[in-house]
Amino acid sequence: MSESGTSGRIVPVILCGGSGTRLWPRSRAARPKPFLPLVGERTLFEQALDRCDDPALFAAPLVVAGEAHLPHIAAQAGEGVRIAIEPAGRNTAPAIALAAALLGDDDIMLVCPSDHHITDTAAFRAAAEAAARLASEDRMVAFGIAATRPETGYGYIKRGEAIEGGFAVDRFVEKPDRARAEAFLADGGYDWNGGIFAFRAGAFLAELASHRPAMAQAVSVAVRGGAWDGRCFRPEPASWEALEGESVDYAVMEKTALAAVVPADFGWSDIGNWQALQAARESDSDGNHTSGPAELVDCRNVMTDSDGPRVSVIGLDNVIVVVDGDEVLVTSADGAQQVGTLSGARNQ
Amino acid sequence: MSESGTSGRIVPVILCGGSGTRLWPRSRAARPKPFLPLVGERTLFEQALDRCDDPALFAAPLVVAGEAHLPHIAAQAGEGVRIAIEPAGRNTAPAIALAAALLGDDDIMLVCPSDHHITDTAAFRAAAEAAARLASEDRMVAFGIAATRPETGYGYIKRGEAIEGGFAVDRFVEKPDRARAEAFLADGGYDWNGGIFAFRAGAFLAELASHRPAMAQAVSVAVRGGAWDGRCFRPEPASWEALEGESVDYAVMEKTALAAVVPADFGWSDIGNWQALQAARESDSDGNHTSGPAELVDCRNVMTDSDGPRVSVIGLDNVIVVVDGDEVLVTSADGAQQVGTLSGARNQ
Repeated sequence: MSESGTSGRIVPVILCGGSGTRLWPRSRAARPKPFLPLVGERTLFEQALDRCDDPALFAAPLVVAGEAHLPHIAAQAGEGVRIAIEPAGRNTAPAIALAAALLGDDDIMLVCPSDHHITDTAAFRAAAEAAARLASEDRMVAFGIAATRPETGYGYIKRGEAIEGGFAVDRFVEKPDRARAEAFLADGGYDWNGGIFAFRAGAFLAELASHRPAMAQAVSVAVRGGAWDGRCFRPEPASWEALEGESVDYAVMEKTALAAVVPADFGWSDIGNWQALQAARESDSDGNHTSGPAELVDCRNVMTDSDGPRVSVIGLDNVIVVVDGDEVLVTSADGAQQVGTLSGARNQ
Repeated sequence: MSESGTSGRIVPVILCGGSGTRLWPRSRAARPKPFLPLVGERTLFEQALDRCDDPALFAAPLVVAGEAHLPHIAAQAGEGVRIAIEPAGRNTAPAIALAAALLGDDDIMLVCPSDHHITDTAAFRAAAEAAARLASEDRMVAFGIAATRPETGYGYIKRGEAIEGGFAVDRFVEKPDRARAEAFLADGGYDWNGGIFAFRAGAFLAELASHRPAMAQAVSVAVRGGAWDGRCFRPEPASWEALEGESVDYAVMEKTALAAVVPADFGWSDIGNWQALQAARESDSDGNHTSGPAELVDCRNVMTDSDGPRVSVIGLDNVIVVVDGDEVLVTSADGAQQVGTLSGARNQ
């Protein structure tokens, strides 16, 4: 695809992975999280495309997704969007390698999850430009999301020395326990790892080959054995399926000597559960938010979200109610972390 | 109906009134509370009939109901049950007078709401026998439910001097505020007025004529102008509709010098709201109860009741979730008192 004419512009690589079980029952296997209008009228996937809809800065996006996502992508993405289809989910390192192999070596990839929410598009684009400059110098660039609470659900990035446009990475830290998360927040030198990255395609493949040679080789074989069909590329399935899945954090970012982090303060949320979604939505003066028919009496910080039935709530604080077809979820805000463990979420 | 052969047996008079808005959305205008299986497999109305299904003690019941109740009664009551149909709801005094006018003067009526729950049928029948003996002496007999909490939603009966089979009534007390209710409970001499009564039919009509002569006269006219149609009696509508509605408590019990109270300790509940229903249902060791598909995680004293959709609840205490068609209710146990004020409950 180097001949496709990215002209030095950034190529958005939008990853559609993950099962989104923590937003069950709205998010379901047949209706995954990225393709739902969870915040505002546009779906998270559409918003991810919208953020990169600036021809002066971004080339046409490349989406990496599963076959099951294709109808959603066809319905929500414009004609110019190409799609690399994973024969099976193998986590982010192979997904990014697949995209990199389809691009020109000198293309700058901006790897974005398809299911996050960002409020400040201008700040996002400014960070993308800064990250692209570092990536063009062969840095493996992570986005360091300004930490605002002692979150135990994210990995952290410890900033190292300042470099032009960002920082070197001192180290990546896996999801901490509460005490460590609080220490990170107090320290001030730690950012959240939001899963957004920038790479020069050739540099990423070289680092992957250095740290995960088998994976790099397998992706290369799968891509050579694959084919375009219209705007969809399908790698050779057997080689792909033989791949060992691994996150880009483990496979590359924690190993490379080239890691850099660009500070990112653009109203990011991974909408990782119903509580995060509640925080991302506008609420009234009592902290309540309703989507769909609802009546709230003596409620504080209650969110209702119904696809049809009216939800009437009386006398509750910090409760989330979701109605979706044949499923009703009622959870405390804290309990939202456990939604993925419900049998309804597991047995979709 | 004196010729119908009650042979000294008690005639159960089952009153089907009230809108039951506090059990919305399960109870609705088209599906009133008495005709729902709220506790166990049988409806409250069926249970009211079952309690009196002892031919040695009880004659065939007479039901007083609105026209709209007829299909439910036809579906749930046996052939032998006769039905007096109120052309319009006029509260309990006219309803009881209507039944009394259809019975023989010497018939002993046992007036029972159709939407209460009683766990101990044997104790109920024993109390009914005691009440019937007092009624045969022309006492106006109330049932004094043993008070177990400082309830502000019920009227109270202050017991007077002991008489054979019960007590004279010192006075009836309207619904008290919390402080008075606590004082009544501490005093020990106060029972709840459960809306269950026993009268000799002729004695009741005589007392009504004494204290509410216009009402007694109007009911008499409406009954003389009415007619039986199969097992249904319909009074003459115009006279009935001109009646001023009033409760039997105001019209007779608080006025009469003949009031008596029979102690009643038979596991009574008026199932007056969802919290009362929760208390009447069996719960597990965490205090939880589920009706319909449900999964509870980290919950205490949670009740779910669904007509179809699965209800998944996480991390909540003292919460009630009801799913009924196009309505979902989520309330704190305390908030259950306010269900009747919801727009869904008001605009049925």
